[in-house]
Amino acid sequence: MIVAVVGVGLIGGSLAISLKEKGVANWIIGVDNNEENLRKAQELHIIDEASNLEDAMKRSQLVILAIPVDALLKSLGSILDMAQPNHVIMDVGSTKKALLHVAANHANRGRFVAAHPMAGTEYSGPEAAVRNLFQQKTMVLCDVKNSDEDAVELIESVVDRLNMRTVYMNAEEHDLHTAYVSHISHITSFALALTVLKKEKEQGRIFELASGGFESTVRLAKSSPDMWVPIFKHNRNNVLDVLEEHINQLEQMKQLLQNEDYDTFYKLIQKSNKIRKILK
Amino acid sequence: MIVAVVGVGLIGGSLAISLKEKGVANWIIGVDNNEENLRKAQELHIIDEASNLEDAMKRSQLVILAIPVDALLKSLGSILDMAQPNHVIMDVGSTKKALLHVAANHANRGRFVAAHPMAGTEYSGPEAAVRNLFQQKTMVLCDVKNSDEDAVELIESVVDRLNMRTVYMNAEEHDLHTAYVSHISHITSFALALTVLKKEKEQGRIFELASGGFESTVRLAKSSPDMWVPIFKHNRNNVLDVLEEHINQLEQMKQLLQNEDYDTFYKLIQKSNKIRKILK
Repeated sequence: MIVAVVGVGLIGGSLAISLKEKGVANWIIGVDNNEENLRKAQELHIIDEASNLEDAMKRSQLVILAIPVDALLKSLGSILDMAQPNHVIMDVGSTKKALLHVAANHANRGRFVAAHPMAGTEYSGPEAAVRNLFQQKTMVLCDVKNSDEDAVELIESVVDRLNMRTVYMNAEEHDLHTAYVSHISHITSFALALTVLKKEKEQGRIFELASGGFESTVRLAKSSPDMWVPIFKHNRNNVLDVLEEHINQLEQMKQLLQNEDYDTFYKLIQKSNKIRKILK
Repeated sequence: MIVAVVGVGLIGGSLAISLKEKGVANWIIGVDNNEENLRKAQELHIIDEASNLEDAMKRSQLVILAIPVDALLKSLGSILDMAQPNHVIMDVGSTKKALLHVAANHANRGRFVAAHPMAGTEYSGPEAAVRNLFQQKTMVLCDVKNSDEDAVELIESVVDRLNMRTVYMNAEEHDLHTAYVSHISHITSFALALTVLKKEKEQGRIFELASGGFESTVRLAKSSPDMWVPIFKHNRNNVLDVLEEHINQLEQMKQLLQNEDYDTFYKLIQKSNKIRKILK
């Protein structure tokens, strides 16, 4: 199968590598507004050739849209305009409600499958693409009832070949749950980096003292604003809601410390330990 | 050298393993109030024998205190009372100011070296002990000017054998910097777990959707309250100070989202990205 990957960054690039490796794709056409990224993706043999969107769509069966969610919102309509009956178009964006609203009444809506692989790293660009990023991870498919059956079946078989679990949700559920399980983690990590960079005047000390714990809570703060600002923008209400709760939890801890109420603090930590059962 | 390890949990146990492996210790005597932990440590061959504190001190040259900081504060005086001129006593606690205040005027203060290895995991107990936990990590030595020269030299050589870097600070600096680089990470992780456990009513969704990002920001929430409440208690002012700043940063992000000021949000994320330069 010929696959067009639009956006050859971390996710698009990693998908390209895996699809080739698993034998899903025998030829990958890369498309990217950023010429430099396109050149790098080719140099790194992540894609077989570089082309423009029109040409890539004409010659491929599966089209994967792996661009930031704001760019996706802007271009999905015109991409669907170009869709042929044999095309399957899949996105991998982190927010879904606004996107599926855009797609809703399009004549070619059925050829589109909204997907979100729950996998990534804090790095971006084609150099960040890695093999096995998706292994044993979850692929969320949204509102599949509005996609054509054969399109969903193709995507399901691709997901299966990638050794991923499939989870089905509607767009609202998706945006709600990802706010809890992904978006808030990025907010806290950005805020933690800002906190430490502001308080710690001797930055050499961070380097000397940072151990695994600090690194793991702060590593997401290396993530690109180009990707994350659009996500926060398009999932604003859910993110605000969970952010408010997070601030409340921190305020409560602050109060307990101020009041030296260590017994209640102990119980709070015990309660938070319940995450052990869920994350193993 | 015979080494007594008081507290055979994650840190004490991991040190015992490494000291034996690197040839620093040829016999390790374990001491622990928790009989079950002591038995497990012996079963796992982390210690060579179990004994009580008095006996262990009598027969060892190096005594490592690896118990929670509140227990350490209570017992350091009586441990120093038992110190002989050839003893070197080292702690590995996460807060130092209160501890060194307790030790300050003790006749045997010179035999004590205050140390803090910047390494750990979210697990506890002897089963959590792992080899190579300290490899290439930092050991902070505090107020070494108040320790006898030969005692500091012995500890420095041990740290060297463990393949660790040594960093010197006074107790106040230590407690300040660790609040920034370690303690606040635990607070945010506990609070994040509580946030998600409260907001996400469908806990199966956390399991399905959680990817590396969520796991890394929340994993410290598995940490034991027995270890962490005493740390927050004894570093209360510094922790409160950095926690307040962290809440401010989150409040600022909330405001920006509420006002839909995505340009400023973008700049904030760019600023937080500077952590890349420090953490590589």
